[in-house]
Amino acid sequence: MIFDVLSLFPEMIDNYCSFSILKRAVEAGIITVNTVNPRDFTLDKHKKVDDSPYGGGAGMVLMAQPYVDAYESINQTENCVTVMLSPQGEPLTDSLVNDFAKYDQMILLCGHYEGFDERIREIIKPREISLGDFVLTGGELPALCLIDAVSRKLEGTLGKIESADEDSFSNGLLEYPHYTRPREYRGLAVPEVLLNGNHKDITEFRFQKSLERTKLKRPDLYNKWFDNN
Amino acid sequence: MIFDVLSLFPEMIDNYCSFSILKRAVEAGIITVNTVNPRDFTLDKHKKVDDSPYGGGAGMVLMAQPYVDAYESINQTENCVTVMLSPQGEPLTDSLVNDFAKYDQMILLCGHYEGFDERIREIIKPREISLGDFVLTGGELPALCLIDAVSRKLEGTLGKIESADEDSFSNGLLEYPHYTRPREYRGLAVPEVLLNGNHKDITEFRFQKSLERTKLKRPDLYNKWFDNN
Repeated sequence: MIFDVLSLFPEMIDNYCSFSILKRAVEAGIITVNTVNPRDFTLDKHKKVDDSPYGGGAGMVLMAQPYVDAYESINQTENCVTVMLSPQGEPLTDSLVNDFAKYDQMILLCGHYEGFDERIREIIKPREISLGDFVLTGGELPALCLIDAVSRKLEGTLGKIESADEDSFSNGLLEYPHYTRPREYRGLAVPEVLLNGNHKDITEFRFQKSLERTKLKRPDLYNKWFDNN
Repeated sequence: MIFDVLSLFPEMIDNYCSFSILKRAVEAGIITVNTVNPRDFTLDKHKKVDDSPYGGGAGMVLMAQPYVDAYESINQTENCVTVMLSPQGEPLTDSLVNDFAKYDQMILLCGHYEGFDERIREIIKPREISLGDFVLTGGELPALCLIDAVSRKLEGTLGKIESADEDSFSNGLLEYPHYTRPREYRGLAVPEVLLNGNHKDITEFRFQKSLERTKLKRPDLYNKWFDNN
């Protein structure tokens, strides 16, 4: 999977991809992360990328020309999707992440400051994705979330010691509780059933805990699961 | 506001806070971001922080002792909230961000790999916050989203040229479209009303666009707004 990220702060992207599981995915050739800085495409001698909004108001607006030119400089493969990270987009879900993981290339458009000149949307016509109903300084963190979430789904990113199969949401429920050594910590013991080696009991215990937890913490997910099962 | 972040990858946190608006907020003394690495609190000579799960299964589980000891090493002020970033938490919203911005200190617990030993939850009893219904490699990106979103709300973080007042969600609607120079780009013109300087018309145009856009992209938000107005 190739990720091409348009950002005024490419170091934010590069830095995150140099740690942990993403670093390993890059080194293993499973993902490639390129950054393109619209500031390198300004025709203005001051390398200006934003300007004040027509009609007045606070905030700076990202200018169309550097953004669109930066976008058009990217080599697009056939199986490519362009995503704008924006609070106005469709909220990201595990099922959307699975859809994105089927592409060979994702172009991610990060805004910063007040927002994009509307004509960037009109010309590029990206899908718009949001992390949720809150506002951030820029699209870099949402882009990294998308890269991270999608990369985890690609074959080979998670080694044998990790797994995406039993994650929260993979079966529509929240994940069951985990325990590791020691058996007792500050008077709190690991549930007996996890120690007795009976796989049927363990599976049943975990499933019941998943159900309980989902019902308690996310009744909306629980009801959806209940309707489908 | 003091943010204390428990993370096995403190560089991810430090790096993001060295750019753009967060950097400025740190330099202006509006926020302080400290990181604490549970790896520095292991009693094990190999500095082990995770182990395989009781009951079997893929993934490594974060051990309770280094995490709880790291947590307890943090100096807590009176007006402090502890938040665990986890897909099982309450989904983050603009209104939750406003609530968090009222604290003087936030302690953010980032997991990594498969998850936390359940006893970490039982002992620390954190609030649990999720970015949305998808899974990430670790809690670092969600923690950064929270730091970014909360910091934007603190007085002085956004200068005169930016503003949080007209952001998406601040009035329950998505934001109206923005335009900046030039007046025409690739045949696409800035709407005439934004150029004529009539503030009443501009306000009305922007409000109508906000409504239209919310109705089209997020009927759930639109209906909620409609019920409240």
